[in-house]
Amino acid sequence: MTEITTPATSTYTRADGRGVDQLRTVKITRGFTTNPAGSVLIEYGNTRVMCTASVETGVPRFKKDSGEGWLTAEYSMLPAATHERMPRESMRGKVKGRTHEISRLVGRSLRAAVDLKALGENTIQIDCDVLQADGGTRTASITGAYVALADAISYLKDKGVVPGEPLLPPVAAVSVGVLDGTVILDLPYEEDCRAEVDMNVIMTAAGDFVEIQGTGEHANFNRTQLSTMLDFGEKGCRELIAAQQAALGH
Amino acid sequence: MTEITTPATSTYTRADGRGVDQLRTVKITRGFTTNPAGSVLIEYGNTRVMCTASVETGVPRFKKDSGEGWLTAEYSMLPAATHERMPRESMRGKVKGRTHEISRLVGRSLRAAVDLKALGENTIQIDCDVLQADGGTRTASITGAYVALADAISYLKDKGVVPGEPLLPPVAAVSVGVLDGTVILDLPYEEDCRAEVDMNVIMTAAGDFVEIQGTGEHANFNRTQLSTMLDFGEKGCRELIAAQQAALGH
Amino acid sequence: MTEITTPATSTYTRADGRGVDQLRTVKITRGFTTNPAGSVLIEYGNTRVMCTASVETGVPRFKKDSGEGWLTAEYSMLPAATHERMPRESMRGKVKGRTHEISRLVGRSLRAAVDLKALGENTIQIDCDVLQADGGTRTASITGAYVALADAISYLKDKGVVPGEPLLPPVAAVSVGVLDGTVILDLPYEEDCRAEVDMNVIMTAAGDFVEIQGTGEHANFNRTQLSTMLDFGEKGCRELIAAQQAALGH
Amino acid sequence: MTEITTPATSTYTRADGRGVDQLRTVKITRGFTTNPAGSVLIEYGNTRVMCTASVETGVPRFKKDSGEGWLTAEYSMLPAATHERMPRESMRGKVKGRTHEISRLVGRSLRAAVDLKALGENTIQIDCDVLQADGGTRTASITGAYVALADAISYLKDKGVVPGEPLLPPVAAVSVGVLDGTVILDLPYEEDCRAEVDMNVIMTAAGDFVEIQGTGEHANFNRTQLSTMLDFGEKGCRELIAAQQAALGH
Amino acid sequence: MTEITTPATSTYTRADGRGVDQLRTVKITRGFTTNPAGSVLIEYGNTRVMCTASVETGVPRFKKDSGEGWLTAEYSMLPAATHERMPRESMRGKVKGRTHEISRLVGRSLRAAVDLKALGENTIQIDCDVLQADGGTRTASITGAYVALADAISYLKDKGVVPGEPLLPPVAAVSVGVLDGTVILDLPYEEDCRAEVDMNVIMTAAGDFVEIQGTGEHANFNRTQLSTMLDFGEKGCRELIAAQQAALGH
Amino acid sequence: MTEITTPATSTYTRADGRGVDQLRTVKITRGFTTNPAGSVLIEYGNTRVMCTASVETGVPRFKKDSGEGWLTAEYSMLPAATHERMPRESMRGKVKGRTHEISRLVGRSLRAAVDLKALGENTIQIDCDVLQADGGTRTASITGAYVALADAISYLKDKGVVPGEPLLPPVAAVSVGVLDGTVILDLPYEEDCRAEVDMNVIMTAAGDFVEIQGTGEHANFNRTQLSTMLDFGEKGCRELIAAQQAALGH
Repeated sequence: MTEITTPATSTYTRADGRGVDQLRTVKITRGFTTNPAGSVLIEYGNTRVMCTASVETGVPRFKKDSGEGWLTAEYSMLPAATHERMPRESMRGKVKGRTHEISRLVGRSLRAAVDLKALGENTIQIDCDVLQADGGTRTASITGAYVALADAISYLKDKGVVPGEPLLPPVAAVSVGVLDGTVILDLPYEEDCRAEVDMNVIMTAAGDFVEIQGTGEHANFNRTQLSTMLDFGEKGCRELIAAQQAALGH
Repeated sequence: MTEITTPATSTYTRADGRGVDQLRTVKITRGFTTNPAGSVLIEYGNTRVMCTASVETGVPRFKKDSGEGWLTAEYSMLPAATHERMPRESMRGKVKGRTHEISRLVGRSLRAAVDLKALGENTIQIDCDVLQADGGTRTASITGAYVALADAISYLKDKGVVPGEPLLPPVAAVSVGVLDGTVILDLPYEEDCRAEVDMNVIMTAAGDFVEIQGTGEHANFNRTQLSTMLDFGEKGCRELIAAQQAALGH
Repeated sequence: MTEITTPATSTYTRADGRGVDQLRTVKITRGFTTNPAGSVLIEYGNTRVMCTASVETGVPRFKKDSGEGWLTAEYSMLPAATHERMPRESMRGKVKGRTHEISRLVGRSLRAAVDLKALGENTIQIDCDVLQADGGTRTASITGAYVALADAISYLKDKGVVPGEPLLPPVAAVSVGVLDGTVILDLPYEEDCRAEVDMNVIMTAAGDFVEIQGTGEHANFNRTQLSTMLDFGEKGCRELIAAQQAALGH
Repeated sequence: MTEITTPATSTYTRADGRGVDQLRTVKITRGFTTNPAGSVLIEYGNTRVMCTASVETGVPRFKKDSGEGWLTAEYSMLPAATHERMPRESMRGKVKGRTHEISRLVGRSLRAAVDLKALGENTIQIDCDVLQADGGTRTASITGAYVALADAISYLKDKGVVPGEPLLPPVAAVSVGVLDGTVILDLPYEEDCRAEVDMNVIMTAAGDFVEIQGTGEHANFNRTQLSTMLDFGEKGCRELIAAQQAALGH
Repeated sequence: MTEITTPATSTYTRADGRGVDQLRTVKITRGFTTNPAGSVLIEYGNTRVMCTASVETGVPRFKKDSGEGWLTAEYSMLPAATHERMPRESMRGKVKGRTHEISRLVGRSLRAAVDLKALGENTIQIDCDVLQADGGTRTASITGAYVALADAISYLKDKGVVPGEPLLPPVAAVSVGVLDGTVILDLPYEEDCRAEVDMNVIMTAAGDFVEIQGTGEHANFNRTQLSTMLDFGEKGCRELIAAQQAALGH
Repeated sequence: MTEITTPATSTYTRADGRGVDQLRTVKITRGFTTNPAGSVLIEYGNTRVMCTASVETGVPRFKKDSGEGWLTAEYSMLPAATHERMPRESMRGKVKGRTHEISRLVGRSLRAAVDLKALGENTIQIDCDVLQADGGTRTASITGAYVALADAISYLKDKGVVPGEPLLPPVAAVSVGVLDGTVILDLPYEEDCRAEVDMNVIMTAAGDFVEIQGTGEHANFNRTQLSTMLDFGEKGCRELIAAQQAALGH
């Protein structure tokens, strides 16, 4: 939609030498494990997330007899994924607000990639477990989970249990931010924790937004900065969608 | 910043007769209860939220000896606030993801309205308890909590325990959405649950964004719709900030 | 039943100037919120409790197929209701013993005001949320909840879903205590925390006891003191029942 | 204080042949187990409760540096104590309201039997675990716990760690009720679950009330019935206190 | 199977004067309480455990329509069972790993003593509550629970609700260990906490192992020590099975 | 120690064609992730476990001022590790007994491989997260965690914060079982769930046992079978220790 021209700020020097609107190296490994219907390891640089899609016949109570399926998601960090080990949520007996928030975001985003009616009364459970965290874990989760979802839907179609074509075109996600007044794409941890503004952009292959979340962490942001962030986010999502399609052999 | 011109869609008819970019009636009652340092009842139409700001000497561990204060927030719905009674979270023994998510949003938004250094090692606890829910409870919470925060800071200043001028200019919040393809401002429940897109805009008096969160609930959204939503959000926040200032006698 | 003669101790001076057997100003506001079938704000002086009665078709499992209805109650303090803010029970992940104890008391007391057989297989859920606490919150909850219950039963009758006349005559409650050796009625927080003995009296319009709970907090009590406390409690309940009936237009 | 004359209703026939104002056989076994400082098995007929008093140096935070000690209590039913096995509260992950309520009652009652100042900064933890339940478990708990408390205080005195004489005269407890319109003392389960009114009376050796709790379960009660219940409760407590003193060799 | 010859190490002196391969005094009291179908107090020296077997019609979901019954077990320590009082798990809101581990061991061991097919769709719930702990509580629990199980099965047979003969020959359990390099049988707490190796042996009347668990607590162990431990464990279990049979009058 | 001669039962045919006393292919990948001090992916055939060792200065309270360090472990299954997805323990709000039991086993086993005195007041936290489960996850966890532990200790030694040489010779673990009456080594899921007896053997490089746990799942076992299981376990552990040493370049 919009033309991405490298903005004037592109002379900004990033610790890892990337251009301001350049993604980290993205790797998508399908069939990472064998038990779930879809299992993907996605890497955004040093961020590594195992995304699985498990399938189950039937739907939760609130969807019973709707003729529609359901998709839900859970996100979690392994305790040693971060630099400082974090206590395991199962041992603390409660799930942190941040975890809930991301799980809900992943679920909403992936539901934008599935036609629940065409899925029939089947449930797809997405699990995104962060093996190694270096910024952007929630966006990597969404991008990787789409590929796992695609594999799970193939599996269901092969079993002949879905009435239609439930898989919609790709949904991908990337972070953008403002650091030292400069808009940058796909922030690793070192940039993320210093950024003034942090934004997550989730888009479809058609170039529409599924969700945007922008937060002024250490400063507020104006409409011009927002516009550049959206431009960068669009560019990032387009490239990530290409990577998803390559991984799926589309 | 941007000129708000009523868009072509303004012929859209809303159930309550409002214009597409018109707020519901907003009422702000200070001193709603007497124990907390700040206590405000805010009403956006039929949505009513009790927002309090309680003060405490000292700061949580992670802020100890930083010389800075802290602000944190909790949001909750009374069980009978909604049309169908909802089980009480204390009885279920766990807090829902949605509640966590909103509590975190309110906290982040209000921290944009306070200079923690100027606050000194004091903690302000915001509580937003929804007495009656009719859409927009999280945005009403933020707008109302700012006024309670202002009163709590006055209280601390009168006690002579804050080293500086911690209160920053107002922060307000409003919802915008897309319903039947039309962008509308400040959605009551009836519109909210049918809307294709739902967005919350949190802004400062200076016209900068503190946070934006846009979610395609039943459809995705494009850049043009986003632009109109931001225009409406800005207009709404400007009017809400005027209401905050009037309530505070500024 | 018993003649209330102001006892010799009536020369005792209370901080708020009331006579020893005099209630605080009582206000009952019906229709305080609009979603629940009954919604009442009750005030005993500065104590303010929002009492709602929500209705639901069907009964809990242990009442299934009994032909009878059920009534249950939950009491809670908003965190900023008290002078010092109290942690929210939902965040602590467990409900305090005191909260459980009062919820159970409110439920038992209100079940004395409803004919469960005449209610049919419907459930009424009472919620008493204390907006501002100044002593006597549990007794105010009971008195207010009766009025909300009456409105909820009217609502059910209008819908034609109750087989009989479930509403029994009013039940009201008040605290009495011994302070500095003197029996006093309806203790605000300042008296309550210093009282030697604290008692709650719950009575019907017929002058019978539904429940009495007397506790020697800092001293024990003898039969004579108990007798005076019961006299004062009866007087208080009679006056509160008059206020309930006035509110209901009976 | 009051003369106990067997009332006219004494011709009422109880299932176990007792007179209306007659206790079940009471047995108190000291030294039931050897690890805690005080350990007592108390039996009210078939109700059997193990009451222990454990001692600990120091006090909870809210009593720190007060120079005073503390006493707290926990009540629990073993899962197989009742006729139908009840789920274990530790496995359910939460404590029932009834358990909280009784634990609090036992703690308050026993604190009426100890001079916290004379105890010094020591904590006594009472545990009442019901091995077999046949009505009156909370009252048996209080009566038995007093004896365990006495032994624990002897133990502390022998160790020379209490500054004064913390043990106050006995506190005992008994249930009374109204069944078929007749007031009866010390109800076993079979009577308890049919009783119209249920009341617990906790008294000191001096004949004063520590606490009274009367509840109309299936009917309300009037002042005359209350008076007879209190008479019976006083008689029961006097006899129980004699049994406590005999057990302690006083 | 193996010949038990007292090993050369038998000159080792134990604090309580026992031989190295000698059990503590074992007492088994049937009918300890009256509500559950089986109720046994078992004593291994000062260790005392109340073992009950409650019966219920029907089976858990995973056994539905299998035609088989189920047996499950829960182990718990009363808070004052140990020398230092331990916090009650119900109050902490979670069950310790050790408790889970022992509950599971007891359940597995007792399922080796019941023919689930012959039991029909009935459930037996074993509860082992330690009244006094002096080492070997888990093994005493298993041995005692077998007797309670036998009584519960008799009860079910008398009611005519079991299709076959569900009770299998006895299962008993005992601890063995290595202390100061010497293998010893049935360790009390004082030996247990100093032992280098701790082992639990659960055997059938036929001399087969149901389960063995050996743990090097402060040292590892070799095959020779293991062999002696198993010899002692066999001897202990044989004697315990004789005690079970005597208690049951077999 | 004992000579392993392939027993007569070696003609038994296993689904994967292995000999009865043959391990699955074992792979140990060091440096699997980069944040923790030690991070290992271990594979026993299709079972894959990520084992990390995180280090922390200081020790838990019960070890304070002991001059010794501490090691603790947590085991967990990712929800999609198994064939049927299992609910996440953090979402259920409680940890299953099985998880607790294995975490405790892993911790005890690894503590046999570290000299806590030589470690000084440092804590090592082992995390074993099962990415893919195909039997033997607990034994793979122990074997892999030893390698992660070795790397974490190297890291601490490089930092110069350990007073001695804390790493003891390797500890490894393997499962053995009886299936169709035949003793077999290292059972995959398909064999494990049908096995009559299941045993875990944890050994040191010196050939001593750290722990043995044998459970008759569907049948009991005799001393002869036990002996063969121990022989197989020894052989397996010897080979696994060779693999650990090869991975560590020893």
